[in-house]
Amino acid sequence: MKILNEVFGISSKHRNQMIDITSQVGSVVSQSGITNGDAIIYCPHTTAAITINENADPSVPQDILFTLEELVPHHRAGYRHSEGNSDAHCKSSVIGCSEQMLIKDRTLSLGTWQGIFFCEFDGPRHREVMVQIRGE
Amino acid sequence: MKILNEVFGISSKHRNQMIDITSQVGSVVSQSGITNGDAIIYCPHTTAAITINENADPSVPQDILFTLEELVPHHRAGYRHSEGNSDAHCKSSVIGCSEQMLIKDRTLSLGTWQGIFFCEFDGPRHREVMVQIRGE
Amino acid sequence: MKILNEVFGISSKHRNQMIDITSQVGSVVSQSGITNGDAIIYCPHTTAAITINENADPSVPQDILFTLEELVPHHRAGYRHSEGNSDAHCKSSVIGCSEQMLIKDRTLSLGTWQGIFFCEFDGPRHREVMVQIRGE
Repeated sequence: MKILNEVFGISSKHRNQMIDITSQVGSVVSQSGITNGDAIIYCPHTTAAITINENADPSVPQDILFTLEELVPHHRAGYRHSEGNSDAHCKSSVIGCSEQMLIKDRTLSLGTWQGIFFCEFDGPRHREVMVQIRGE
Repeated sequence: MKILNEVFGISSKHRNQMIDITSQVGSVVSQSGITNGDAIIYCPHTTAAITINENADPSVPQDILFTLEELVPHHRAGYRHSEGNSDAHCKSSVIGCSEQMLIKDRTLSLGTWQGIFFCEFDGPRHREVMVQIRGE
Repeated sequence: MKILNEVFGISSKHRNQMIDITSQVGSVVSQSGITNGDAIIYCPHTTAAITINENADPSVPQDILFTLEELVPHHRAGYRHSEGNSDAHCKSSVIGCSEQMLIKDRTLSLGTWQGIFFCEFDGPRHREVMVQIRGE
């Protein structure tokens, strides 16, 4: 059983943005030498998240961000947090700050249409993504 | 430390449906011989999800599906994705495509009222569920 | 590879409440002797959840609970579940009943502003939190 940790940085350009990080995570997996196990992708920020969804048609992440903005608008009467980013904190908890996925035959075992996204909800900012690969 | 992988198929009958897969997952755990560890249940589809909730009263999953439909309706002005299933992609990211649970004494360590559900948001379809059991 | 399991209890005082459990989880990690690995925090209840978000300013969890209540109100025409807590079940699945985080140098590898919260959605009640620490 081996446990490997990596961190990589990304920069968002918009307040709300889904950034495809599948290839960066895939590189960590292929370099790990681990053939069977799992990967955790962890976001150490409280106004961002990690999700897995379709990365073939860019309208899918657009529609996800649009829906989240409809449900949790930037400005809403009743927010108490003074930094003006309560919506981003809420979206972070609704989507979740980590994802896990399986590794088989030394590759990420994603579904045909699945990609891994870093979800920025309070950009533009420089962010970090932590990856842990475990297995044999 | 052992790592075991299994895949099983299920068929949904409705566009939105929560299918109780607790017994299928429990069988994988009991056959694994692992007494202490964890299980990952992973959905390799981008218009479906995995969740854990009450499986005693069928009105609970009904009310969860009803609430999700109220929040993320099938048709909403502003969706760009041409396949007409943007709602399903959104619900998938809100609920999440995997769950993890603990294994103790060779059984799933679920709470009294907890069951594991495959959440279909764009059925009816044939779907796959991946299970990884890790432990000793 | 070691696997350690712990359970601790907490008591909520309100129907909706986010309780910071970062120090309890941190104690389990530091006592485990594990220097490199991961932790699963698991809630065995179907009307509660676990999330990671900012624990510096108490207005952040307040705004998250406020937003969830706006989206999923306690009483809504159409709920079928007779116990009157359908909203709590929905919130549990939206937030999710577990979180995972990484352990490095014998400490939880949380971001600067991140804390771990037990989310009560149908209190006041006595609740349990399960923790599994894995690593070397």
